[in-house]
Amino acid sequence: MSPDPSHTYIHGYSRREAGRLLNQARTLVGLLHYDTGYPPGSRVLEAGCGIGAQTVTLAEKSPGAEITSIDLSEESFLEAESRVRAAGYTNICFREADIYTLPFPDESFDHIFLCFVLEHLPDPVLALTCLRRVLSPGGTIEVIEGDHGSAYFHPDSVAARRAIGCLIALQREKGGNALIGRVLFPLLSRAGFREVSVSPRMVYVDSSHSELVEGFTRQTFTAMVEGVEEEALARGMMSRAEWDQGIRDLYLTCEPNGTFCYTFFKGRGVR
Amino acid sequence: MSPDPSHTYIHGYSRREAGRLLNQARTLVGLLHYDTGYPPGSRVLEAGCGIGAQTVTLAEKSPGAEITSIDLSEESFLEAESRVRAAGYTNICFREADIYTLPFPDESFDHIFLCFVLEHLPDPVLALTCLRRVLSPGGTIEVIEGDHGSAYFHPDSVAARRAIGCLIALQREKGGNALIGRVLFPLLSRAGFREVSVSPRMVYVDSSHSELVEGFTRQTFTAMVEGVEEEALARGMMSRAEWDQGIRDLYLTCEPNGTFCYTFFKGRGVR
Repeated sequence: MSPDPSHTYIHGYSRREAGRLLNQARTLVGLLHYDTGYPPGSRVLEAGCGIGAQTVTLAEKSPGAEITSIDLSEESFLEAESRVRAAGYTNICFREADIYTLPFPDESFDHIFLCFVLEHLPDPVLALTCLRRVLSPGGTIEVIEGDHGSAYFHPDSVAARRAIGCLIALQREKGGNALIGRVLFPLLSRAGFREVSVSPRMVYVDSSHSELVEGFTRQTFTAMVEGVEEEALARGMMSRAEWDQGIRDLYLTCEPNGTFCYTFFKGRGVR
Repeated sequence: MSPDPSHTYIHGYSRREAGRLLNQARTLVGLLHYDTGYPPGSRVLEAGCGIGAQTVTLAEKSPGAEITSIDLSEESFLEAESRVRAAGYTNICFREADIYTLPFPDESFDHIFLCFVLEHLPDPVLALTCLRRVLSPGGTIEVIEGDHGSAYFHPDSVAARRAIGCLIALQREKGGNALIGRVLFPLLSRAGFREVSVSPRMVYVDSSHSELVEGFTRQTFTAMVEGVEEEALARGMMSRAEWDQGIRDLYLTCEPNGTFCYTFFKGRGVR
């Protein structure tokens, strides 16, 4: 009953996308993970580890925790596993599993961690409810998501906004929600978590932050939009000329007078 | 040669607007001003003090500084003066003056401070250049602005976004720029300041922050949008029914499952 992940994961499984995910993880590690980490001996579930872009950070920040990382895609978690082993971490085990049908007894974990997963799921409240079942009472869940509607920039551009809109619409067609960051509070609340709190993590980029111009605006965000070019054009969502204009305009925000803003959200709840 | 301020200040000069400005200032003081403050003996210019909504904070954070606060509107700065006197501060003098034709010799000040002023000016780079003239070499300028394009919320609403769009369009017609926050870096750079840095100050509101639901989403942001109702409807920018829907939808973001995001920007440069 596992869906074929290649149909639900909008960004696909290409080598280029793997590079993008790793670049994103490196660029954003301070912003998203300065407060990530679990105590020695605690049982941690990473749900939806993908190729392990966040898993290495999770392991590094949680020495001594017993981490279980799951993903729908065997190919992905095998890559995650080799990445984690190459980094020298031995406290993680990997397995193929579906968040909606978790192969774990009730209350198996002290903490649950998800990063860039809920945005791809058609029923995030159900997913969170399934995760809650395997969390021990008093245990925590932490969820990191972006929100593509939080992107704005200078120079502003209708074509660039429309190109981003294609990504949002295509993700919605696949059952996901690219505007999920702003909804973490109600999602966690509806799934029955208590003491829910959400912390926004804004990325502000101007030319005084050259590492973010390159690592975030170009190689993370614009590369992600470019990733849906083929599908957006095949569907006639934009003309080739307007699409190219939109992408050019996104690169214009990387010029010395350009700026780019985007916000991630980190939500936390307690069972 | 001073423009009539009633034609250029989009929010107007009503009692209700004065209340909104003071509420905004109280709600946001920690976020915007935790790092505001000038040393004793320094000469500080506050350009565009209005009714003094920020001036009291500036005085409180800068005991011993010699502050000069100017505004185009005599009525406004007289109100600012009585507000500052009532709060017991004596280190501020007020005068009527136009940023474009400052009545001060070159290098008269060590620091310049502006809050929610540039967004209303037709030529912000010229304004900054005029301000730079009266700043001593090595002196700093600090500029705080919002960016209405940074507003997004849950539940999302086309009508609410269109109502915000009316405010942005009307402010643009008056020569202002309601999307100025994202442009502070290039504006300060073009005006010749060096070591320019911009710090975003994001307001994230969900129902766990009841003081922000009330003080920011309702009484600052939504009240500001409501302030252009008459003009937006008179111009036929939206129908009465759609406008009412937009405002209702903004209030929906204040409900227990709603969220609201907005970002201010604080820019700094050195002469």
